Amino acid sequence: MALIVQKYGGTSVANTERIKNVAQRVARFRAQGHQVVVVLSAMSGETNKLIALAKEISASPDPRELDQVCSTGEQVTIGLLSMALKDIGVPAKSYTGGQVKVLTDNTFTKARILSIDEASMRRDLDAGKVVVVAGFQGVDAEGNVTTLGRGGSDTSAVALAAALKADECQIYTDVDGVYTTDPRVVPQAKKLDVITFEEMLEMASLGSKVLQIRSVEFAGKYKVKLRVLSSFEDEGEGTLITVEEDKNMEQPIISGIAFNRDEAKLTLLGVPDKPGIAYHILGAIAADNIDVDMIIQNVGVDGTTDFSFTVNNSDFARAKGILDKVKSELAARAVIGDNSIGKVSIVGVGMRSHPGVASRMFKALADEGINIQMISTSEIKISVVIDEKYLELAVRVLHRTFGLDRAD
Amino acid sequence: MALIVQKYGGTSVANTERIKNVAQRVARFRAQGHQVVVVLSAMSGETNKLIALAKEISASPDPRELDQVCSTGEQVTIGLLSMALKDIGVPAKSYTGGQVKVLTDNTFTKARILSIDEASMRRDLDAGKVVVVAGFQGVDAEGNVTTLGRGGSDTSAVALAAALKADECQIYTDVDGVYTTDPRVVPQAKKLDVITFEEMLEMASLGSKVLQIRSVEFAGKYKVKLRVLSSFEDEGEGTLITVEEDKNMEQPIISGIAFNRDEAKLTLLGVPDKPGIAYHILGAIAADNIDVDMIIQNVGVDGTTDFSFTVNNSDFARAKGILDKVKSELAARAVIGDNSIGKVSIVGVGMRSHPGVASRMFKALADEGINIQMISTSEIKISVVIDEKYLELAVRVLHRTFGLDRAD
Repeated sequence: MALIVQKYGGTSVANTERIKNVAQRVARFRAQGHQVVVVLSAMSGETNKLIALAKEISASPDPRELDQVCSTGEQVTIGLLSMALKDIGVPAKSYTGGQVKVLTDNTFTKARILSIDEASMRRDLDAGKVVVVAGFQGVDAEGNVTTLGRGGSDTSAVALAAALKADECQIYTDVDGVYTTDPRVVPQAKKLDVITFEEMLEMASLGSKVLQIRSVEFAGKYKVKLRVLSSFEDEGEGTLITVEEDKNMEQPIISGIAFNRDEAKLTLLGVPDKPGIAYHILGAIAADNIDVDMIIQNVGVDGTTDFSFTVNNSDFARAKGILDKVKSELAARAVIGDNSIGKVSIVGVGMRSHPGVASRMFKALADEGINIQMISTSEIKISVVIDEKYLELAVRVLHRTFGLDRAD
Repeated sequence: MALIVQKYGGTSVANTERIKNVAQRVARFRAQGHQVVVVLSAMSGETNKLIALAKEISASPDPRELDQVCSTGEQVTIGLLSMALKDIGVPAKSYTGGQVKVLTDNTFTKARILSIDEASMRRDLDAGKVVVVAGFQGVDAEGNVTTLGRGGSDTSAVALAAALKADECQIYTDVDGVYTTDPRVVPQAKKLDVITFEEMLEMASLGSKVLQIRSVEFAGKYKVKLRVLSSFEDEGEGTLITVEEDKNMEQPIISGIAFNRDEAKLTLLGVPDKPGIAYHILGAIAADNIDVDMIIQNVGVDGTTDFSFTVNNSDFARAKGILDKVKSELAARAVIGDNSIGKVSIVGVGMRSHPGVASRMFKALADEGINIQMISTSEIKISVVIDEKYLELAVRVLHRTFGLDRAD
């Protein structure tokens, strides 16, 4: 008997027929003697619908109230799945984030989980019930409803698995595993049987839509065994995300190609080249709770330098507003922004032991006439920012260059 | 400065434009120096949509989970209104039933309010905030979400007004007050400036859709000054619901004509005519939480009698199932059911001092060839059950007969 946390995303609960299918799948696991905790997203499209309502009300909706509104999508699906389970004779009980309770800080719309009270869930599991928890949401110390940000249901699932010391956390989605890249862009993309947390982290943070980045961090940190599976297939082992590299196998140099269209680039030109500048700029950005991704500072010339970074497209306008203020404070020359960029990255633990990967990447892009605007590297990934219109071409070229195309 | 509880129904918050209008109205009251607590229903159609989803999942959805699902409609509107208020510079804070907290028993889908903790609301009001509360919902002692049954938002509003000792509870709806009958059926219907709680209670319980019956009971019990107003008009005093009859005015004999299409009639034929029979039958019905409205037992003949009662249409199938079991237990002859009936009632405190009202009513119906199936009377109302197809005709005839038609 194992304790399994299963998370089903929006497409898996998109309508009542699919919710009944999820109930059947959960019932099968339970019939095998497992204890099951289910974490659900809202029906696909529902959260966007709620945000659209809020935007009709206000150009910048109050964050506390936005969370009050947006958290309802998951509350609907947990109720519906619990009904469906009881309807087929499986005892079940739904919990909102507040009912669990999933305690978070009070950073509305992007809250962080502080602790999870597993007592009531444990009691229900021991009584033979399936526990159905609303993903994406929690409650702060004052009882305000909070949400964890887009894709937060994955994080909820992993956090619950960690709190309950579950044997496995299964993320059911509309794909049957983690691919070398998005098969919609590269039809030759292959499913990976195993990927390391580190690689997955880079893939996720770089825009692979399979798993939310924080959930992978959490899983790595708390050693939660994580598996990505399709909710539309009954067979298949999906992709297991492991802590260890598999020493017995010939490692591919590159495991996958990640890309992201949702970033925007901001540059502050002619900044005085002196200590504390990066902090001055990024401190102001962070103070407004905007996540920064790539950061580039060029070598200074004539006592000034140019400072560039990328943010999520949705934060572009806000970040630009902040930079305009910082510009006067620092007597910088100008602020320029570009939100039609794309980022493409090659990811692989094999990179550590294989020199020359970067130059192979840059040559492949150059051969296609693709200009590189920014470069950023880590131990296991190399990212470049390019004009958005070349993004898909770049992904296909790199997928072929690093031998990832399926051989059929 | 007064403390006013305002309740807005589903049509008043049916879309974001209307929610903004509500925000403007609330802002005007606040600008006059009043403290305002707003109670909201779900957007019109939303609760039905959620119930329809639940019915797709299960023919008889688990009540706890149904409440988990259905309570989300109000959570969306309170968030949206609070955003709208803040957007026009009015500090506001939304509360779900659980956040207030509105403590109820655990009769899911039909919960009763036990107590309301007004401390946080009072703190917010004193800090100058508008408090926006989700109607229709509460939370039981174990933290499960409960709902108060259809129309429960009115009850929430009155209960909050009572708990906060508000100066007035204003129910905003899509009509500008309480009418002598439904103007959609009788165009000559008149708005009443004042109506007594007793009359309103009869009007509401008999199917006038303006106010939910329990809210009127509550208002009467806790002496809450209740006013029904239109949310679509800026002028107008609506209808005030008072404890006292106005002694200075010539009372009309009949204040209004109520009617209800949502009932079904059940009859147990050939029941042994002995003590305890009514309890045996209705006890079984009540045990399943089905509300019974009219009850008729005919005089016994040959040691047996016929026992009839009406229930809400939505409980018809369930009630019939119970009666089928009771039939064998009591060795009764047969169960017959009819869900194409209508009930029409004349209501008026003036009835007390004017004899002959019943016979005028019956004559008016007989003149139109309408057959009366059941009769039930109270001190201030007379109800008859007739074939549903004559319902509107009966309402119009009685409205004219008792001099309620507008003189224009």
